[in-house]
Amino acid sequence: MSEPRLVEVRRNVLKRNDVVARGLRGKFCQAGVFVVSLVSSPGSGKTTFLERTLTELQPRYRVAALVGDLATENDAIRLARSKAPVRQITTGTLCHLEAAMVESALDAWDLRNLDFLFIENVGNLVCPSSYDLGENMRLVLMSVTEGEDKPLKYPTIFNSSDIAVITKTDLATAVEFDWDAAEKSIHSVRPGMKVLRLSAKTGEGMSEYLELLSRQFAEQRAVAQT
Amino acid sequence: MSEPRLVEVRRNVLKRNDVVARGLRGKFCQAGVFVVSLVSSPGSGKTTFLERTLTELQPRYRVAALVGDLATENDAIRLARSKAPVRQITTGTLCHLEAAMVESALDAWDLRNLDFLFIENVGNLVCPSSYDLGENMRLVLMSVTEGEDKPLKYPTIFNSSDIAVITKTDLATAVEFDWDAAEKSIHSVRPGMKVLRLSAKTGEGMSEYLELLSRQFAEQRAVAQT
Repeated sequence: MSEPRLVEVRRNVLKRNDVVARGLRGKFCQAGVFVVSLVSSPGSGKTTFLERTLTELQPRYRVAALVGDLATENDAIRLARSKAPVRQITTGTLCHLEAAMVESALDAWDLRNLDFLFIENVGNLVCPSSYDLGENMRLVLMSVTEGEDKPLKYPTIFNSSDIAVITKTDLATAVEFDWDAAEKSIHSVRPGMKVLRLSAKTGEGMSEYLELLSRQFAEQRAVAQT
Repeated sequence: MSEPRLVEVRRNVLKRNDVVARGLRGKFCQAGVFVVSLVSSPGSGKTTFLERTLTELQPRYRVAALVGDLATENDAIRLARSKAPVRQITTGTLCHLEAAMVESALDAWDLRNLDFLFIENVGNLVCPSSYDLGENMRLVLMSVTEGEDKPLKYPTIFNSSDIAVITKTDLATAVEFDWDAAEKSIHSVRPGMKVLRLSAKTGEGMSEYLELLSRQFAEQRAVAQT
């Protein structure tokens, strides 16, 4: 069902996106900010997870967030409770963030004042996978309520991410979540992929995840200083 | 961040889709088959809901289903347990079904042998909203685990659907689902929209939903015979 002309135009859009993303990556690196993006289907708990992340990182790090959504500023309002600087990107009908949107949202921010920048993508397991945002690390979230086979059905997003985060683990028993099947799905798409188990509600898995972020941040700083 | 050339090409794709969809709608009407499409984010429970629908309708009606997914035939395999004819449409990297895919998937089927045809779209709350598939009724599903504000964040898909189905109601207490907030979100996007509460696991709400389908089917048949 491919539309040759559409495919060609899309390829150009992606190419342009890659150029902008490369520029962003250079800026992030120079400024010494570690950038983490979050992708998932709608309702996987990205915002709750991010709110907790910002709150827990703040005593030690300077953090900020950009959040993408088609409409509403609900997520930015929720995240602002963490007291971290947050900016909403409203995409209209576009189903993903593009590097140029990130670039213009960051326009007035001095990145040197940040240690971590989080970018929450539009809730979508398909389209965001093709768009590089210049991030250092991409997390793909799936909640236990979504079913164990999501990676098999949406392989590209798992393949383009660095770490899989299984969220809402507090509901795992209620939905009879099959951990082995889930990890098997993830690893059949991306062998060896790191999988974190997390509940932003109970805090399960948060300390392992925050340590991982701290380690990655320290490594990047060490590399930047050599 | 709109890409003028891409928008123009997209408009042509949509226009072509509308033409094919119109043709399909004519065929469905002539054959007397009532077509229901299902849209939702990944993991809202479309397949479980559809499996139960097919199983419960079968003693009284001739039913069949088409299921769209990027990869895997998992859903078709699950639905085949209902003994209804099921066909999988694999979209590759495309984030939605288009009318032409439905048309070619139906190629060898004699529609006059069917009372109901169900079309399960790719799990995505954004892209499927723009593509008419010639269906009589579009159901948008959201599970209680996704949060009450999904309609505000994805208004187009709710606006382009006929009925909202809140699924996994058996988990409502565990996730402290706020029914009033959810209905308020739905009705602020689409005032007066019918909302069904459903659990494919416990069967809650199934009989109201199946009666609604029977009524719609009888009405369509009555219109077709006049």
